[in-house]
This record gives sequence, structure tokens and C-alpha cells, in this order.
Amino acid sequence: MISIPVTASRNYCVKIGSGILPCLASEIHQLTKATRVAVISDSHVWPLYGESVQTILSDSGLEVCSYVFPAGENSKSGDTFLKILNFLAENRISRSDCLIALGGGVVGDLTGFAAACYLRGVAYIQIPTTLLAAVDSSVGGKTGIDLPAGKNLAGAFHPPCLVLCDTDTLQTLPEDIFRDGCAEVIKYGILYDKELFNRLLGQGLSFDRESVIARCVELKRDVVALDEYDTGLRMKLNLGHTIGHSVEAASHFQISHGKAVAIGTAVITRAGCKAGICSQETKDHILRILEVFGLPTRTDYSAQQLLTHALSDKKRTGETLRLILPKDIGECIIFPMETSALYAFIQEGL
Amino acid sequence: MISIPVTASRNYCVKIGSGILPCLASEIHQLTKATRVAVISDSHVWPLYGESVQTILSDSGLEVCSYVFPAGENSKSGDTFLKILNFLAENRISRSDCLIALGGGVVGDLTGFAAACYLRGVAYIQIPTTLLAAVDSSVGGKTGIDLPAGKNLAGAFHPPCLVLCDTDTLQTLPEDIFRDGCAEVIKYGILYDKELFNRLLGQGLSFDRESVIARCVELKRDVVALDEYDTGLRMKLNLGHTIGHSVEAASHFQISHGKAVAIGTAVITRAGCKAGICSQETKDHILRILEVFGLPTRTDYSAQQLLTHALSDKKRTGETLRLILPKDIGECIIFPMETSALYAFIQEGL
Repeated sequence: MISIPVTASRNYCVKIGSGILPCLASEIHQLTKATRVAVISDSHVWPLYGESVQTILSDSGLEVCSYVFPAGENSKSGDTFLKILNFLAENRISRSDCLIALGGGVVGDLTGFAAACYLRGVAYIQIPTTLLAAVDSSVGGKTGIDLPAGKNLAGAFHPPCLVLCDTDTLQTLPEDIFRDGCAEVIKYGILYDKELFNRLLGQGLSFDRESVIARCVELKRDVVALDEYDTGLRMKLNLGHTIGHSVEAASHFQISHGKAVAIGTAVITRAGCKAGICSQETKDHILRILEVFGLPTRTDYSAQQLLTHALSDKKRTGETLRLILPKDIGECIIFPMETSALYAFIQEGL
Repeated sequence: MISIPVTASRNYCVKIGSGILPCLASEIHQLTKATRVAVISDSHVWPLYGESVQTILSDSGLEVCSYVFPAGENSKSGDTFLKILNFLAENRISRSDCLIALGGGVVGDLTGFAAACYLRGVAYIQIPTTLLAAVDSSVGGKTGIDLPAGKNLAGAFHPPCLVLCDTDTLQTLPEDIFRDGCAEVIKYGILYDKELFNRLLGQGLSFDRESVIARCVELKRDVVALDEYDTGLRMKLNLGHTIGHSVEAASHFQISHGKAVAIGTAVITRAGCKAGICSQETKDHILRILEVFGLPTRTDYSAQQLLTHALSDKKRTGETLRLILPKDIGECIIFPMETSALYAFIQEGL
């Protein structure tokens, strides 16, 4: 097991390892004064791990209640958020009790946001069961929901008190969902770590789970520590996400987050290369690694379609939008762009 | 005009005075980089001040949009909260823009909570137009909504960047609503300030607005500064509120907040007196001042009805509930009570 301490407005640990799920109960007793625990999960994950988690908790003397919502990005809504809040109130979860997010990014974001708002803040533990959630959404304290106008438009900064990633739970992931997470793993290589990038390029889908997840968590931890409230450096983690979110939204979330980010990364890499920001070789490396992992690099949506969605993106400040562009493997830049110039830029990258 | 600086996770000022509303535009330009402003108000207040506020803002070059919801506690719901979030997204309010809460406590709590969550936090300004909002909900950064299971069960700590209280707006308040606010003003006297209490007892409803509001804001400011996240001392501000919230909930919010708090204060004062916590004289003073201000001190609800609602109150930690009880005028104590003992205690106070 690897344990990575995270310094934030509230300090916590990310623990990664095979077969560590049973530690959950003792961790809760150490970290909180909870007598009741509410497990929030979705219809994919609950049937796989719900019963084990419930037994682990009950056996240690905790009262357990559970709320399971339909799996999928459509559930990351204000409606599900309010249902969870009502569920917590009906089950009389108190300020000293604890929530558990058992699932992928949607479960984590919703549970974290509910934990941030219920009684103006209660503790929660993340148990990420997807690669994407393990490396990305479970670190950094960003929680949130989608609004009809766009993704992640409402939320809160609310760090968990523990992230417990049992790599065994990743074995049951459909390969397609696993690949989705790989898009984020690759992102960390492009942003910060040429060695990680090259390792991934060499090993492909069979990379070592524990060490690679730990490295990504460390990298995210370090950038979040420098910029907890997402006002500067942390913006770089949006590599591929501005266009990625547009692709997701344009497809009505039929194209998954990871694949959309892969497309977004490819689009801005091609456009950035034409604009002279990265070399041909860097561009080729980035497109190649996406292909090695079976991720898409093209979209049929037009620049106009993508633009409409990009303009409602929350990173827009006034009339300037900040894109993250690769300069070299392991080095990216923040590139402020007038919204009026964005159409032509996207067009170049398609 | 009196300006009271408040130190919180974000520092801000509460400005109180007659005819200061037109300062709003210059304040926004000084405090924010907003180019757009969203004014949130309700169906009572908007017809009175909406147009003036809109003109003040437009004349200074700001783009203004407004969202008006039906007045009343029923609107302090998850439903209105989501509608406001969607309104902000549709109007493309950005992170650097600003919201304005124009109205009483419900408008302030909803707007503050929306500001806390929209894009994970944008700035907002409170313009309290009721006495209750001026002395209580506009200071301290507590924002929130009600859930079907009880009042204020969800929310966030999110201080405004300015509170602008134009005492002229209080002139248009129906006397009944004004009296509601008096219940909170009296609360500050009972909790912290015998001199304020005696002044109010002497002057009754004709007390000087500016100086009394300023004194209450100072008192609240000082306790919030010591306990921003409401884990200890600030609990005292709940004087009269545990039973008060129960009365409100039992009446399906037909009994107003101020009157419910007056009843709650009277109930726990009588019960506390019987338990020997305050003297007969202190009890008589408290009941007398409530009567001078035309506030109720009795309820027809049974102890059992009130208990059901009190047990879902969020101040409950495990099986102990903390009541705030007057010991003397200007001095109250936090009294932990087993929920099993609460029925008999409420019964004594009815």
C-alpha cells in the first residue's frame, strides 16, 4: 500500500493498494466520531461492492444507510443533489457523522458536494472505483454538479477526510471505462512528467496500477497544494478539458469524459502545433500515445458547434478564455485567447 | 452612515445609514471586477426597489439581469436554489461578476448559497431590506436553504463582499414584519448587552434605527469573528431558535421566524427559570420586553409536536442537544441536554 499525504484546507491521505477496502471501518473510527454512515453509490457500482462495504461498516458497530442513484453523467444533476440532501436529513445524519462516496467521478462529485452543503459541511470519504476517479476527481477537493447550461457549473471546494483506492476494484471495470481513465493518466505525463509519459507509451494498457496511480496523485497533490482554490496553476489540469467538455456537451454526454478529453487534447495539440507552440515531434508523440491507449483523436462536431459550448465554460473570464497548450512533453502553457479568435483556433485543430 | 468592518475568511464592511443605496454602483466597481450583475429579489421587494437598483447599476455601465421569486419562506427551497443557479448560467455570469441579494433573510440566504456554489464561488452583496436581515442574516456568512425535513439543513459559509443597509428601506416594512426583526434585536440584548436591552425596553418600537442596528451588527460580528464556522460560541446566537424552528415547522411556516423565535425564547426562559437557571426577575424582564414589542410568548403546539421537530434540528450532536438558556440579562449559557429529557423541559416552559 502507498499512502500519500495531502495538505489542503483540511489535511488527508490518499491510500492506494490491493485489497485495502476492509481498512475502511478502522479508518472511520480513527478519523471521525461518526456513529452513522451514509453510503452514496450508483446502480453500476453498488451491486459489485455495496454489500461488502455495508458488512465491513456494520461489523464495526456503525449504523449504515445507503442511497443508490442511476449510473451515468445524467445523474450529476441538481435533482440528484437535492435527493441526496433529503435522504441525509430523513436518515438524521448529524454533523459528526460521515458520508462515503462509493464509485466513480460522478458519485464522488455528487457526494462531495452534498457533504459540503449538508448541515453546511460534514465529513466524507472517497472510495474511487474507476481509474479516472482514482487519479483525478478524488484529489483536490473540487466537488460539483452539472447544470443544463454546462458541466460542473455549480459546486464547492470540500476536501474528503480520506481517499481509499483499492486497486482490486479497478479489475471489474469494463475496458472501455478503464481507457477513459487512461486519458487523465496520460494528461499528467503531458503536463508534468516526461518519464511517466514514456513509461506509459512503452507499457500501454498493462502499466502497473499502484505506482502509476500514486504518481498521478502526487502530481495532482502538488499542484493543488500550490493553488487550492483554482485561481492559477491548477488551471493547467484543464488540459484538453475546454474542448473536451464541449464534445461531451455536444454529444449530450454520449461521448464519455475520458474520450472527450482525449479528443480535446488532440484538437488543441494540433492547433497549437500549427500556431508554433509545440514541435511536430511533440504533437506526434501526443497523438501516438492516445492511439496506443485506444483513445479517439478526432471529432465530427464542427468548430461552430464546439464553440457554442466552450463559451459557456466557466473558465471564461469576461471575454477572454484560457486554453492550456502543450509546449513539450512535461511542459504546458496557459494561453489567454480572445473568444473572437477561438473559432479559427478550433478549426485549425479539427 | 456607520461602517462596521468585519473580519472573516474574507473581510468586508457592513454600512448602515439613511439614503445610502446610490453608493451601490461605486462600491461594486471598487470591490469587484464585475461587468455583469445579477440582482436576486422576491415578489415583495422587487416592486419597491428593483427599478431604482437597476437604474443605479445600469447608469454606472454595468449589465444587469434580475431574478425574482415568490416572497415567503416556502421559496427558501432546493427548487428555487437550482432555478437561481440555472438563471446565472443562462445569463453567463462569470467568476468575476457579482450577485446582489435585494430583500430580507430568505433572499439573502438563497442568494448567498447560490453565490457560494455557482462556479464554486462568486462574490455577492447583501442589501437587507428587513430589520431581521439587517441585524442577523446579513452578518456571519451563513447561507442556506430549507429541506422538507427542516429549516437551514443545507447551506454554506460564504461571507458577502459588502452589506449595504439603507435604513430608508425599513420604512416601507409592514409593522408586523418590522416586529419580527425586533425579536432578533432583543435577542442581542438578552445574550450580550444589558444596556441595549434596557434602551429597547424603554424606547419600544421607536428605537433609533441606525445606532441599534449598528450595535447588533457589532455584537454579531464579534461572536462570529471568534467562531466563524459555528462550532462553539456562535451557538449562543441560537437563543430561542431550537424551539422557534420547531414552532415555525409545526405551523408549516405560517408563524413567522421572529414570532417563532419570541415564542422559543419565552418557552426556554420559563423552563430555565423553573430549573433555577435564571431568576424570576430576569424571566419577567424577558417576557415583558417581548410584550412591549407586541411579540407572542405562548404557543398552542404541544411539547410532543415541538419535540418531533426539535429532534431533526441540525444542532443535535448524537443524542445530546444544546439549548441556549438565559442566566441573566446579557448573559446566557449553553446547556447540553439529553434528547430524552427534552420533552419534560419543553413541557415546563409552555
